[in-house]
Amino acid sequence: MPRPTKVANSELALIERIRKRVALPRGSGSVLGIGDDCAIFRPRGATEDLLFTTDMLIEDVHFRRETHRAPDVGWKALARGLSDIAAMGGEPRFCLLSLALAPWAGSDWVDGFYRGLLRLAGRERTPLLGGDLAHSEKTMCDIVVCGSVPRGQALRRDGARAGQAIYVSGLLGGSASGLATGRGLAWKRHVHPEPRLALGCFLRSEVHATAAMDLSDGLSLDLHRLCLASGLSAEIQAPAIFPGATLEQALHGGEDYELLFTAPARTRVPPEFEGLPLTRIGTMRKGRPGAVELRGVPLAPLGYDHFRDL
Amino acid sequence: MPRPTKVANSELALIERIRKRVALPRGSGSVLGIGDDCAIFRPRGATEDLLFTTDMLIEDVHFRRETHRAPDVGWKALARGLSDIAAMGGEPRFCLLSLALAPWAGSDWVDGFYRGLLRLAGRERTPLLGGDLAHSEKTMCDIVVCGSVPRGQALRRDGARAGQAIYVSGLLGGSASGLATGRGLAWKRHVHPEPRLALGCFLRSEVHATAAMDLSDGLSLDLHRLCLASGLSAEIQAPAIFPGATLEQALHGGEDYELLFTAPARTRVPPEFEGLPLTRIGTMRKGRPGAVELRGVPLAPLGYDHFRDL
Repeated sequence: MPRPTKVANSELALIERIRKRVALPRGSGSVLGIGDDCAIFRPRGATEDLLFTTDMLIEDVHFRRETHRAPDVGWKALARGLSDIAAMGGEPRFCLLSLALAPWAGSDWVDGFYRGLLRLAGRERTPLLGGDLAHSEKTMCDIVVCGSVPRGQALRRDGARAGQAIYVSGLLGGSASGLATGRGLAWKRHVHPEPRLALGCFLRSEVHATAAMDLSDGLSLDLHRLCLASGLSAEIQAPAIFPGATLEQALHGGEDYELLFTAPARTRVPPEFEGLPLTRIGTMRKGRPGAVELRGVPLAPLGYDHFRDL
Repeated sequence: MPRPTKVANSELALIERIRKRVALPRGSGSVLGIGDDCAIFRPRGATEDLLFTTDMLIEDVHFRRETHRAPDVGWKALARGLSDIAAMGGEPRFCLLSLALAPWAGSDWVDGFYRGLLRLAGRERTPLLGGDLAHSEKTMCDIVVCGSVPRGQALRRDGARAGQAIYVSGLLGGSASGLATGRGLAWKRHVHPEPRLALGCFLRSEVHATAAMDLSDGLSLDLHRLCLASGLSAEIQAPAIFPGATLEQALHGGEDYELLFTAPARTRVPPEFEGLPLTRIGTMRKGRPGAVELRGVPLAPLGYDHFRDL
């Protein structure tokens, strides 16, 4: 689970290169393509828009056989996708799973994996509708989650305006801290992330957030991405930090799966939602798109980027 | 690319085990879950049903770096998914791609891969709406294709009735023959399969086929699956064979991506569709579900099964 510490926007660059080559035909139902937490598709005649997200979980990249129990891997695989649905204010509808199994992953492991995944799927009413199975050298899976929002109401990354307030939910850095220590509440947070589905719906329908995304790759990189999508810069203070985590982990550590969102400055955002703190950390500004300053000092997007060397 | 030659229904058994654990909540829009070419989902208010399929393509399992060019891998990744949409009589709407890249796969390979994939996506008006990127030891991808059919009209595997005629499109065994020889038209067929999308729509809207699926794992295994789904057995003759292929390859070789379908005995199925032969190969019968006889002799389901050892 290497977490690079250098500025790394090569994944963004590759995604941008691909995005430019894809045309979205008019009238095809494709509302939003590559570049947000989810794609948006509008079925013919439907009163709802559908959200789609895919997430891979790969042995020795995202989890280790020795340290991550099978039910936790299954849980996390789905939780990552559900978190993307939460980020757009969606309600999960179903999921699909492609699973490639290494020779070491016998039926006990497979059963445990599905047990963990289906426990979360059952709780969130997200039936597993299909998928694919294969063998490979390393165990890996790819989860697709479909969610829905009332037509035209998905929260996107590109809706923030200058002067609007920036918020995050929860306490940051817990997952990175847990990964480093392998113990305690922080470790539990690393292996058992909680997708913020109820909060996402609340932000969409009650707060009327203007932009949102989930914190999967670290605040510094994810806020940079939100700023890029909205064509703005941001000024922030330090976020609320998970007990035992460092400021570094809270700023750059990935996999917290909290929500980052913006709202008009005079919107009254409650200080917490169902016990989860909602903390104002800063303000969106006109300026170089993507630039983020922490207490007036430029903050480099040091979060996790798979494609730094590509 | 190992192709096991023993009877192998362990993949079916594993899928069945998972399927039993998944409840499809009523009113959730989930029409059909695990066990067909595609899952079926009905969005709220929509006049169409959506079809979803996922397919993995893994280095050294489904392709080899040395023998399969990057654009061919990209093409095939999407073609496999489109073939599942064709099998249900669907029109493709969009796709999602998760791609994990091995260290050897540099930007030239990645560009070639996307070139091949996007060429087919453009031709079939299936825009790439999103996906995920990661690094891994072996290159692999998982493609999701969404298609649509008018509400309630998807062709499924479970619709065949006793006495109905069984058909296949095209000539079988070409892909297996190409994989064995690495040359000629058969090799081209192996690396560049053609999803039978127009045929699938024709079977749904004109022929009113009662059941259909695509031939991805070999006729013997795939017909066995169709029979199981419909609760019937089948009697067949030898199918039409691709030039240079053996009967063995035509019966058990995978990746032909032709369509297997059934229709009432008195339906007049044309002998060809847009130059592609449609051959009647047999009849659905009452009897032990899943049993297939070739010229009166039991035909074992010897096609490709990833999970024979699980």
